[in-house]
Formats: sequence, C-alpha cells, structure tokens
Amino acid sequence: MNELIVHDTDNTPIYRILLEESFEGLVPLLHSLDVSNRKLCVVSDSVVGELYGKTICEMLKEAGFFSVLFTFPAGEASKNLSTVEGLYDFLIANSFDRNDVLLALGGGVTGDLTGFAAATYLRGIRFVGIPTSLLSMVDSSIGGKTGVDFKAYKNMVGAFYQPSAVYINVNALKTLSEREFLAGMGEVVKHGFIRDFGYYTFLKEQRERILGKDTETLRSMVYRSLCIKKAVVERDPKERGERALLNFGHTIGHAVEKLSNFSMLHGECVSVGMIAAAELSVLRGTLSKEDASRIREMLSSYGMRTKVPALGREDLLSVCHRDKKSDGSKIKFILLDSIGNAFIDSEVSDEEIWTAFQAII
Amino acid sequence: MNELIVHDTDNTPIYRILLEESFEGLVPLLHSLDVSNRKLCVVSDSVVGELYGKTICEMLKEAGFFSVLFTFPAGEASKNLSTVEGLYDFLIANSFDRNDVLLALGGGVTGDLTGFAAATYLRGIRFVGIPTSLLSMVDSSIGGKTGVDFKAYKNMVGAFYQPSAVYINVNALKTLSEREFLAGMGEVVKHGFIRDFGYYTFLKEQRERILGKDTETLRSMVYRSLCIKKAVVERDPKERGERALLNFGHTIGHAVEKLSNFSMLHGECVSVGMIAAAELSVLRGTLSKEDASRIREMLSSYGMRTKVPALGREDLLSVCHRDKKSDGSKIKFILLDSIGNAFIDSEVSDEEIWTAFQAII
Repeated sequence: MNELIVHDTDNTPIYRILLEESFEGLVPLLHSLDVSNRKLCVVSDSVVGELYGKTICEMLKEAGFFSVLFTFPAGEASKNLSTVEGLYDFLIANSFDRNDVLLALGGGVTGDLTGFAAATYLRGIRFVGIPTSLLSMVDSSIGGKTGVDFKAYKNMVGAFYQPSAVYINVNALKTLSEREFLAGMGEVVKHGFIRDFGYYTFLKEQRERILGKDTETLRSMVYRSLCIKKAVVERDPKERGERALLNFGHTIGHAVEKLSNFSMLHGECVSVGMIAAAELSVLRGTLSKEDASRIREMLSSYGMRTKVPALGREDLLSVCHRDKKSDGSKIKFILLDSIGNAFIDSEVSDEEIWTAFQAII
Repeated sequence: MNELIVHDTDNTPIYRILLEESFEGLVPLLHSLDVSNRKLCVVSDSVVGELYGKTICEMLKEAGFFSVLFTFPAGEASKNLSTVEGLYDFLIANSFDRNDVLLALGGGVTGDLTGFAAATYLRGIRFVGIPTSLLSMVDSSIGGKTGVDFKAYKNMVGAFYQPSAVYINVNALKTLSEREFLAGMGEVVKHGFIRDFGYYTFLKEQRERILGKDTETLRSMVYRSLCIKKAVVERDPKERGERALLNFGHTIGHAVEKLSNFSMLHGECVSVGMIAAAELSVLRGTLSKEDASRIREMLSSYGMRTKVPALGREDLLSVCHRDKKSDGSKIKFILLDSIGNAFIDSEVSDEEIWTAFQAII
C-alpha cells in the first residue's frame, strides 16, 4: 500500500502515486524522473508555503536542485487566470524552459491551478503533485483534471493534463484543521457510496481511528479511495461516461457552493449534495429509505455537514441547469440503487430536485 | 489531392484535411462530424469576419445549425489571453457546453487563439480549422500547436490540441493582399529547403502560375506543403526531435519579429531568417555558397523580404538566447547541408550568429 501506478486507456503506465510518511522521499522520486540540471518551482498557497513550502524548497536545494518557491494567497478566490498569469511571470523571470518542472504543493486549488499552468506554459511542461489536503490526496490529485474558475464559473477554464508523479505524505493530514479534514472525508465516503460497500463498512468501523488520525489507518483509507478513483478514471479519462459517477452529490453540491459564494468548503457542499442525491434516489424509487438514512447517518457520525441555509427555488434550479456537467438541456444526476452502486439518470424533474433539497435545509 | 488524413504516433487517424474550391463543402463536413443539435461558434478577426464570417454563419444557419459569430480586432496584438477571455465570455453567454464546436475562420492568429480557447474551455471542446491565409493553410492549421502571446513573449501560453477537421478553400488565397500571400510563401519554400529538393524545383518552375494564383497550381502547392509538414509532425508531435527542423529560419526570424515590435509579418521574418540560417550553414562549413545563393535567389525571385533594418548586437543575441526553442543554455539552430536536407546544430557561437545577421541588413 505504498504505491499505485496510473495507466492510460491502452494500459500504458503514465505515472506513479507514492504514499509516504514524510517528505524525505521526494528527492529520490525526483531523481527517478530525470530532472537533473532542470529547474524546479514549488507552487504553494500562503499557508502551505509557510508550513512546508520553504522547508521543502531548502531540502531540494541541499539535494543539489535549482529550486524556487512561488506562493499565492490561500483560498478559492485565488483560483483564477490572474494567479496563473502571476505564475507565468515568475517562471519567465526565472527563465524556466520546456524541460523544467513545477511541484504543486498543497490542496485542490494549488493542484488544479499549478496543473493548468503546467499544461499551458510553453504548451506544456512537467509537474509533480504533492497533495497535502485529504480532498486533494484522494480526489483532485488523480485523474488529470486541471483548471481555474472564470468569473462566477467553477473550473470553467482548464485542461486534461497528467502529472509526472504524485507524492503523498500521509502525515500532512495531521496538520489540517478539523474542518478541512472533514471536507475531504466527504469525497472519501462518496467513494464507498458509489462503488464499494466493503469500503463503506471499513469507514463505518474505523471511524475512531480515522478521526484520531492513526497513520496506518489513514494510509489504508487514502490507498483504498485512490484505487476506486483510479479504476474509474482509467476506464473513462475524459468523462464521457462512467467517470460522471464521481459527481455523486456534486450537482446540488456545486449549486450550494456557488449560491453561498464559496463560503462553504467544496467537501462540505458535496456532503449535503450527497444527502440530497440519496433523497432524489428515494424519490425516483431506486434507493431504499433505509439506505438513504444510512448515508445521512454516516456523514453525521463523522461530524460532516448535513444542512445548509435555505435557498430560493429559482436560484437553485437555474444554477443546477447551468452546471457544466449538463449535456444539452438535460441535467445528468448521479443516483444510487444501493450503497456501493451508482448510475446516471437524466430524467430528474425540477420538482424532484426542489423536493430533495428540502431534506438538507 | 483533395484530402489528407493526419494520424497520431500509433497511426490512428485523428482528423481529415479537405482541400476545396469554395466554402460549400463545410456543411457536409460538419454533418460528418456528428454535430447535429450542437452549437457552432465561428471565430474570426474583424477583416475575415466581414469578408467571409457573416456569410458562412448565415450558410450554417440555413443548413439548420445554431451558429453565432465572434470577431476580434485583426492583428497579432489581439493574440493574447484577454481576447481568449472575451471568447470564453461569449461562449458562456451563448450557453456553449462541452459538446459544442468552435470554427476557427482566418489566419494563424485566429487558428492559434481559437484552438487554445477550444483546448481550455470546459477542459476542451472540439474545433474545426478553416484557414484562409497561405501561412495558416500550410503551417499553423496542422500539427496541433495552439496558443497566445504573453506580455512580449510569442506563443508563451498554449497547448498541443488537435482539431476535429481542417477545411481549406484554396480560392480564399485570391483575396489575400500580396504582402500576406508572400509571407505565407516563406513557409512554403521553407518546406522545400528543409525536406524536398523536388518541391524546391517545383516552386522554382511554377513561380509564375503560383504568383498568378492559378487554382490548380495553388492546390498542388498547398497539398505538397501539407504532406511535408504532416510527415514531420506525425513522427514527432510534441517537438522532441525532428519537428524542430520546421523552425528553420525561425530563431533569427523570431528575434527580428520581436525587435521590430511585430511590425513585420511572421512570414517576412522567416524569409530573412532563412537567409541568415543558410549563411550560418555556410559559416559552419555544411552548406555550399552556391546553395546559399540559390536560397536567397528563390526568396528574392518571389519578391519576398531579404533585408531588415539594422539591430544592435546585444539585443539580437539576448533575444535569440531567450527564444523558447532554446534547451537549457544552448540555442538549437536548424541548419542545412544541402537544399532539401536540414539538421539541428547546438554549437553555433554568438560570433557566428552576428556574422550571419550581417547578410540580411
């Protein structure tokens, strides 16, 4: 459980994901990537830059690398083209060429925007993901989605672009705030809900160890979540079919996230979005009321968000309809027919969406 | 000679290039691409938008497509992220989703920036190239390079992204200004110089028919140039080796282009850049003086640019060294050992560059 290899659709290995307990292994990983004589730029937000960025940059210099640190203000508000342009400027000022490498050190915002900068600087340079939040470890670090928000639209601008490697220090989870850790747990339990009843059971039984941040339990959890996500994105890298299942909880979740002006974390919105989607599944007659209750109980037992402030019907529905996952005029909802088995439903009515939303206010 | 098919490195067909004599064939081409019920956005600059954009947009509407026209001010100064953001806004306002399609109608600037917008809007939507300048027909429409300039840096931001098809109306060449036509001829004769002595001979012998815009001769010429470029980019899509040969004339050419503040057309700069590169090949002892003279004569006989205003030594060398084609600290020059055979040389000295430059002032 120290390593996974992600493959492309014709089964060629693309990159390794390492699960370690410190940042020490970064140096040998970089040596294995043929980056000798190349420049490295560690990209971090202001918080993670202070916490780990400076130390890692120093560690790389001591190992003989040319290494610089670029930081930007922490928060979703920085995930835009203007921050990316600031990074381009920094790379140009440091004469980075197409053989040099970015290291994305931080959470989902850092990974998404660094990946996008790597995808577009000089038509694409290499980058290594070093996710430090739970959300980014189990979700955004794998699957090749990069991008930034544009105006009020989340991830409106981006590219599918794969990292050269992903390096996970599981112990970085111990420095997360409780709120951020739980936001990541939203995606973790989602993996159980959509694909793996056994994993759901593991998460239910190991709750105390997980919340107590036991290193080995965390490593098992991150590993099992990555295995589920990896299997889905390997079969459907560009989200033409199955990969959409990973959006369970995300349609109403995104709407809530947007209408709250991003005052809630993504994972918190996904948590309530999953409760609403389970409720929709009950309304559509595919999921039992008992399973919907189990889903709510699981989220609640972890202390995750289960309620949001009320929203207007027109606001909610119009944002749902404009969500980028919509295909033509229909909204694709991900529903469940049991815990561990999700499917795509394009026949959900506005009335059903509104009724399901009542379950989370 | 009506069609080519471009393949990827494992020989899978990616897209078709059609060579036609009007824009009529666009409708059947679009029908073959499975775009029924999809929205189309024709992207053009202010000049080509007036000349062809409105008519084509109307033609598509009459054929039953949802079709809108986006135009931006003509010129290299528009090739930046701000124009791309304007296009994102336009697509959002027209509710374009990930299944909709952009049509890049125009020259290299339009193709590069539309391709980049397509590569990055919602992490990638389809686009069809409809090159109308000679330069874009034989060069930028094939090979998957998209991008925009950033600050003073040409093509600093971009992506490798393939069109779904390329549609060429050879007769569009007849509405080009003489200056633009000749700028494109720079890339055409380059194809002969670097790869194909027979094509060089064709261009020498057919000069009058080409300059007289004979439709069949133009079609043969565009077809032969595309075949040469296609063979190179199919073998080396990401410019890791052989594709660099297409940069013959481009290192000094780019420097001249930049130091003249883009007052000269790209093709004009390539023309003088090729004379300088041939001179460099003579200095390095690989090309005969006779062949270098033939190259200058060919360019001169077509009325292409052979001289530029004087530049400062430091300016020229520093821009050459910062050119993005540099690999680490060395400049990769493309030199010739005969007409029809180019190679990469990384050992050119600053003194040799400066001496070669004297041949074009």
